[in-house]
Amino acid sequence: MNDFGKTLARIREFRDARDWMQFHNPKNLAISINLEAAELLEHFQWKSMDESEQHAKAARDEIAEEIADVAIYLFELADNLGVDLLAAVNAKLAKNEAKYPVHKAKGSAKKYTQLH
Amino acid sequence: MNDFGKTLARIREFRDARDWMQFHNPKNLAISINLEAAELLEHFQWKSMDESEQHAKAARDEIAEEIADVAIYLFELADNLGVDLLAAVNAKLAKNEAKYPVHKAKGSAKKYTQLH
Amino acid sequence: MNDFGKTLARIREFRDARDWMQFHNPKNLAISINLEAAELLEHFQWKSMDESEQHAKAARDEIAEEIADVAIYLFELADNLGVDLLAAVNAKLAKNEAKYPVHKAKGSAKKYTQLH
Amino acid sequence: MNDFGKTLARIREFRDARDWMQFHNPKNLAISINLEAAELLEHFQWKSMDESEQHAKAARDEIAEEIADVAIYLFELADNLGVDLLAAVNAKLAKNEAKYPVHKAKGSAKKYTQLH
Repeated sequence: MNDFGKTLARIREFRDARDWMQFHNPKNLAISINLEAAELLEHFQWKSMDESEQHAKAARDEIAEEIADVAIYLFELADNLGVDLLAAVNAKLAKNEAKYPVHKAKGSAKKYTQLH
Repeated sequence: MNDFGKTLARIREFRDARDWMQFHNPKNLAISINLEAAELLEHFQWKSMDESEQHAKAARDEIAEEIADVAIYLFELADNLGVDLLAAVNAKLAKNEAKYPVHKAKGSAKKYTQLH
Repeated sequence: MNDFGKTLARIREFRDARDWMQFHNPKNLAISINLEAAELLEHFQWKSMDESEQHAKAARDEIAEEIADVAIYLFELADNLGVDLLAAVNAKLAKNEAKYPVHKAKGSAKKYTQLH
Repeated sequence: MNDFGKTLARIREFRDARDWMQFHNPKNLAISINLEAAELLEHFQWKSMDESEQHAKAARDEIAEEIADVAIYLFELADNLGVDLLAAVNAKLAKNEAKYPVHKAKGSAKKYTQLH
């Protein structure tokens, strides 16, 4: 059941049974991805990094749900645009591997434009 | 190559080769998910719904990259918390199917708390 | 009472009476500005531009409260950094006036980098 | 020049000279507030709380500009909805003062719903 393609099929089916494609244009989906991402971040509001680590364990199920909310809209947006999400992720990883060579980027949080 | 598990392995490998786990605590990953989601939304800033549809086609490759950026951090956050993302998505879909029964939710953009 | 300087003084007083400066570092305030901005945007989720206009009138008081939530953290962040917000806004407006000359920008939603 | 009312008048004038009211509906302005808030937060991406404090000083002028970008759209949205922003901020502060009584909230980052 937890296969990527089957998950995508279930997202489409859920939407179409409710006739929601009319609301799910790219702009609205991008907005909803942002709103769900904010609900995820809200879990860590005002918390130190240590408290965030602890909270991530203690509230793992609620956080997993917020992650899922982002993922559902993200998977659907990719699908609606005809984008193969896993291929896009792998293509971007290849790009990042080139932009952030290990010998320059190791241990540094700098942006690639600031790496020497 | 575009299998979910293999993609996850590549994300981990990319991060660990660069010794970036020290920056990738849950709070920071949630922030980065928000920042990448904003870059995705920026594509549709000021555009009407129609213009957004057209732009989504014309700039599909750039948009696919922004979607990938969100996905990379989202996949990693789930992985770091020991959350099986596809299982979490399917669990949330099951919940949404119950919260939004077809006969009540069909054609409506209302929140489940406002459905009668 | 609704003077900018007095409003700022009240924000400081509210925070200090609760001993909250310890949580209000720049990173945390920037996060909270994002979270409140998302709650504001949530008002327009899935709504068309026309429905958004109508909703903005019908729910003006709730929306005013979300705007205030963003403003409170924004005013405080500027204040904590020693930034005179109104001076910063006027300086940015001067910059925008130069970046978007009327004869080029009139009626166009393009970014200044794309204006000819 | 740095008076709130005069700043608002300048924002209106800047927009109207460019005939931009057609793009500045409430939904689009709420989106832009979110996008500018994300650019502000980007300054602190991957940084520890201490590094964020240091960066806030070192990059104060750039950060002031990002704060101004949020403020410009926020001031305009309030203005377009007929909301007196400073009055709204003071009304919200009064509400927060009641929701977070000093003897309960002092030194705590808990939400008012979790204060005892």
